[in-house]
Amino acid sequence: MALNLVHAGHELTVYNRTRERADGLVKEGVRVAGSPAAAVRGAEVAITMLANDQAVRDAMLVPAGETGAAIDSLPSRAIHMCTSTISVALSKELAERHAARGQGYVAAPVLGRPDSAAQKTLWIIAAGPPDHVERCRPLMEALGRAATVMGEEAWRANLTKIAVNFMLASMLEAMGEALALVSKSGIDAQRFLEVLNGLFNSPVYANYGKIIAEQRFEPAGFKLRLGLKDVDLALEAAHESAVPMPLASLIRDRYLNAIAHGRGEADWAALAEVAAHDAGL
Amino acid sequence: MALNLVHAGHELTVYNRTRERADGLVKEGVRVAGSPAAAVRGAEVAITMLANDQAVRDAMLVPAGETGAAIDSLPSRAIHMCTSTISVALSKELAERHAARGQGYVAAPVLGRPDSAAQKTLWIIAAGPPDHVERCRPLMEALGRAATVMGEEAWRANLTKIAVNFMLASMLEAMGEALALVSKSGIDAQRFLEVLNGLFNSPVYANYGKIIAEQRFEPAGFKLRLGLKDVDLALEAAHESAVPMPLASLIRDRYLNAIAHGRGEADWAALAEVAAHDAGL
Amino acid sequence: MALNLVHAGHELTVYNRTRERADGLVKEGVRVAGSPAAAVRGAEVAITMLANDQAVRDAMLVPAGETGAAIDSLPSRAIHMCTSTISVALSKELAERHAARGQGYVAAPVLGRPDSAAQKTLWIIAAGPPDHVERCRPLMEALGRAATVMGEEAWRANLTKIAVNFMLASMLEAMGEALALVSKSGIDAQRFLEVLNGLFNSPVYANYGKIIAEQRFEPAGFKLRLGLKDVDLALEAAHESAVPMPLASLIRDRYLNAIAHGRGEADWAALAEVAAHDAGL
Amino acid sequence: MALNLVHAGHELTVYNRTRERADGLVKEGVRVAGSPAAAVRGAEVAITMLANDQAVRDAMLVPAGETGAAIDSLPSRAIHMCTSTISVALSKELAERHAARGQGYVAAPVLGRPDSAAQKTLWIIAAGPPDHVERCRPLMEALGRAATVMGEEAWRANLTKIAVNFMLASMLEAMGEALALVSKSGIDAQRFLEVLNGLFNSPVYANYGKIIAEQRFEPAGFKLRLGLKDVDLALEAAHESAVPMPLASLIRDRYLNAIAHGRGEADWAALAEVAAHDAGL
Repeated sequence: MALNLVHAGHELTVYNRTRERADGLVKEGVRVAGSPAAAVRGAEVAITMLANDQAVRDAMLVPAGETGAAIDSLPSRAIHMCTSTISVALSKELAERHAARGQGYVAAPVLGRPDSAAQKTLWIIAAGPPDHVERCRPLMEALGRAATVMGEEAWRANLTKIAVNFMLASMLEAMGEALALVSKSGIDAQRFLEVLNGLFNSPVYANYGKIIAEQRFEPAGFKLRLGLKDVDLALEAAHESAVPMPLASLIRDRYLNAIAHGRGEADWAALAEVAAHDAGL
Repeated sequence: MALNLVHAGHELTVYNRTRERADGLVKEGVRVAGSPAAAVRGAEVAITMLANDQAVRDAMLVPAGETGAAIDSLPSRAIHMCTSTISVALSKELAERHAARGQGYVAAPVLGRPDSAAQKTLWIIAAGPPDHVERCRPLMEALGRAATVMGEEAWRANLTKIAVNFMLASMLEAMGEALALVSKSGIDAQRFLEVLNGLFNSPVYANYGKIIAEQRFEPAGFKLRLGLKDVDLALEAAHESAVPMPLASLIRDRYLNAIAHGRGEADWAALAEVAAHDAGL
Repeated sequence: MALNLVHAGHELTVYNRTRERADGLVKEGVRVAGSPAAAVRGAEVAITMLANDQAVRDAMLVPAGETGAAIDSLPSRAIHMCTSTISVALSKELAERHAARGQGYVAAPVLGRPDSAAQKTLWIIAAGPPDHVERCRPLMEALGRAATVMGEEAWRANLTKIAVNFMLASMLEAMGEALALVSKSGIDAQRFLEVLNGLFNSPVYANYGKIIAEQRFEPAGFKLRLGLKDVDLALEAAHESAVPMPLASLIRDRYLNAIAHGRGEADWAALAEVAAHDAGL
Repeated sequence: MALNLVHAGHELTVYNRTRERADGLVKEGVRVAGSPAAAVRGAEVAITMLANDQAVRDAMLVPAGETGAAIDSLPSRAIHMCTSTISVALSKELAERHAARGQGYVAAPVLGRPDSAAQKTLWIIAAGPPDHVERCRPLMEALGRAATVMGEEAWRANLTKIAVNFMLASMLEAMGEALALVSKSGIDAQRFLEVLNGLFNSPVYANYGKIIAEQRFEPAGFKLRLGLKDVDLALEAAHESAVPMPLASLIRDRYLNAIAHGRGEADWAALAEVAAHDAGL
């Protein structure tokens, strides 16, 4: 994603907790900063791409050493474009805290697996004040194939992303159970998937069906422990609004089961292993 | 479906418990019989398209009046092509009983909603002895756009159909919960579905998402009580093989909830109403 | 149970598929018959104590060899007292078929584990026409410590037994999850059970808590596969009345999981093993 | 509870956010303070009895006006005896923070409904360093009928309380489903409960069975929204240890359902209303 920005002509300063990861970008003309606060100093837009709420909090809000918190180092009128899948609650808090400093805040979580990032086929779900979203649009265009704007309040993009990931995890659970049923009965998984793909005719079904049938859970395109985090976010938002989501609860318990058996670093499609295991396969 | 067969040049005798339904076909050159046994007498292939196990049992196996059971009236060497979604157990029983009479038996459940039948875009999942399947192929081609053969044992087609319907019902449950979450939070359902469709890129998601968002549950394309029947079939087959399917169990309980509230005749996508109701929407 | 009847002065003829099991009773003055039909010939009351619907059907309704079906051998005016945990549907069918022959039918399922039978502390849940229940009362008093009459229709006793067994299985599931939580967190199971017993102050909790904490699942007091059967009966009755029972569904899936891992012959309290296993214990 | 302490001869200063609630105690010789910090100044033991984590945080840790945080006002060597049902995480945090100030911390959550408090029949689950627990013992004896000590780490008492409350809520869910099944089938709830009570022989089952059968959910002995909080605490602790608890998840969804329908202030036994409603009762 950093390369896509550079290739689109943007000037870039990066910070990564594991400095070596950033060093490879130096030869592309990217500056590497020693702290989040240093990275965003003087920037027009600060882009965060982090694993979870805690990481975004640590990077933006918590003072780190003499440099202070990044939010205090970001210029007034600059925008924080947050591409992470974070909670609705944190997104609302960021919107408030940035606004109090005269800064903009745009939520822009991305849909797509690692190869999508490299191939610039990520899809961005954005939300925020229209002028801020517009100012971020060239960046979104550099990063992905499309951006959908969900409204003027940033949390709307986060909740949409969370609900979409819940739909994906639901498909994984359904596939896991269906494949356990047909496989234990003696039907070839591939043959079953042909029918399934003929029906749904969806690249997403085709992709994950293949991963599950071939049990290619390593290396992870999206880690199972992040899958758990996302269903946790769905349940947290649902709790806040008093929306029972029994399927989300089921998925959460299945992910905990997988994690209790050491599968947190596997691809989140390894959710299907739980159904297979429960069936004695 | 009957018309499609006639238009393809096949000679057809039909039987329907509600005779009026069959009468409309007379002007197309279709013969109407007064009993299942009369309908199949002298036939090369007997096609059944019925709602459930009981209806197939009643039509084929149970002696009715002086005409006896249809299975005894069907000529030896003729084939019973059963397009209903029936249980794996009944499919195995039919295979045995037809074989004992020198008859063929092909399971050929169909995928598709009513308009698919009219538009000849049904998709047939077939299984049975290869020569019997081949003899039925012209009929399948007259009825639908494609046929996938799952193997030499008829039950394989039935289990595949059952598992596929479980995948569809799972999608409905997931959509119901996701839409309850985003709607109660204040996000427009249509906007959310745009993102969902952008991601899954599946006509099935598009179709059902629209039905649910617009709450067009009447008239039913596929009745909710039949949706319950199909998840019952999945759980019955899963029980037989000792395969726990918690998502199937969840769906079953949701369908029972809908039926307890008088929604058995609504479209099975009305499953989504349960999630909405539980959320107080 | 047979001994308790003999000791109470009743004349007894027994039949058991495994004849050796009955032979031990001969020295107590019990007659041993070669078939169910022979056993009930000339009897005032036929008592069945069998594992499930199929066994009751086989023993009472299905003609076996030259002796015919037991129901046809049982004298008119005699009573069938059925102590098995059978389905509401079969209980209704038996009531009808016995009535059609002028025979009585009393459902009298028993609560209690094997040692309760020996110690005559079984508890009988009875239902049936009042005069038939009264004629059976001396037998119930010989078998257990108490009998509760649920009404004039036999199925009421069966449904009550089924619902009570669901309550027991629910307790087992709850204990399994609670013990997995506290044990994995490092709290001693016995210490936790002391608190639990102090609160519930129930011999049932004390008994099963001990079995689970000590993992004494063999020999089975009540087999897990019968536990599955009983929750199946609950779900079947619930389906009939359109009553969603998600906790019953959960238990059913857990029992299937246990059975898929070869635990069908263990005590039904081994349900708790599933929660422990899921937690990686 | 305050009266029980006074009657046992202890000197008491109380603080309540709703001052009127405390005023009634003045005539009993109780001092009323204007802030938590003022209430604990000079105390030997600070007892907190609050609804949830946030309330304990607010009362003990958050500085309030000029008086500062109560934790800073509590003398070194004094003990905080926390009788609230709080999270394992907060209990661990309190243990650390009090220890850092040379203060003691004892977790002492109580089991029992409001009348138990008045009748001094509360049961206290305690944990903490043995000498601190001993110093609190006279207070526990003044408050309840018994105290069980779960170990030297305070969180052990909290987790035990959380797991016990999960067992209670599980019983409520099971009762709700069982009563929905038998009631919809036409069996009198009271008659069914007689059998259930005969089997479990537990005052807890008797008490809640009566509440549910008579639908006496107001006034609440323990509010449903607090029941939700407690199952949230169970799931939070379970998540921390990677322990899947599907029954706890089910209960959580049912409580959310009840809350979405405005039942948060009803007794937590109103959980049973959800099962009844789902069945169309």
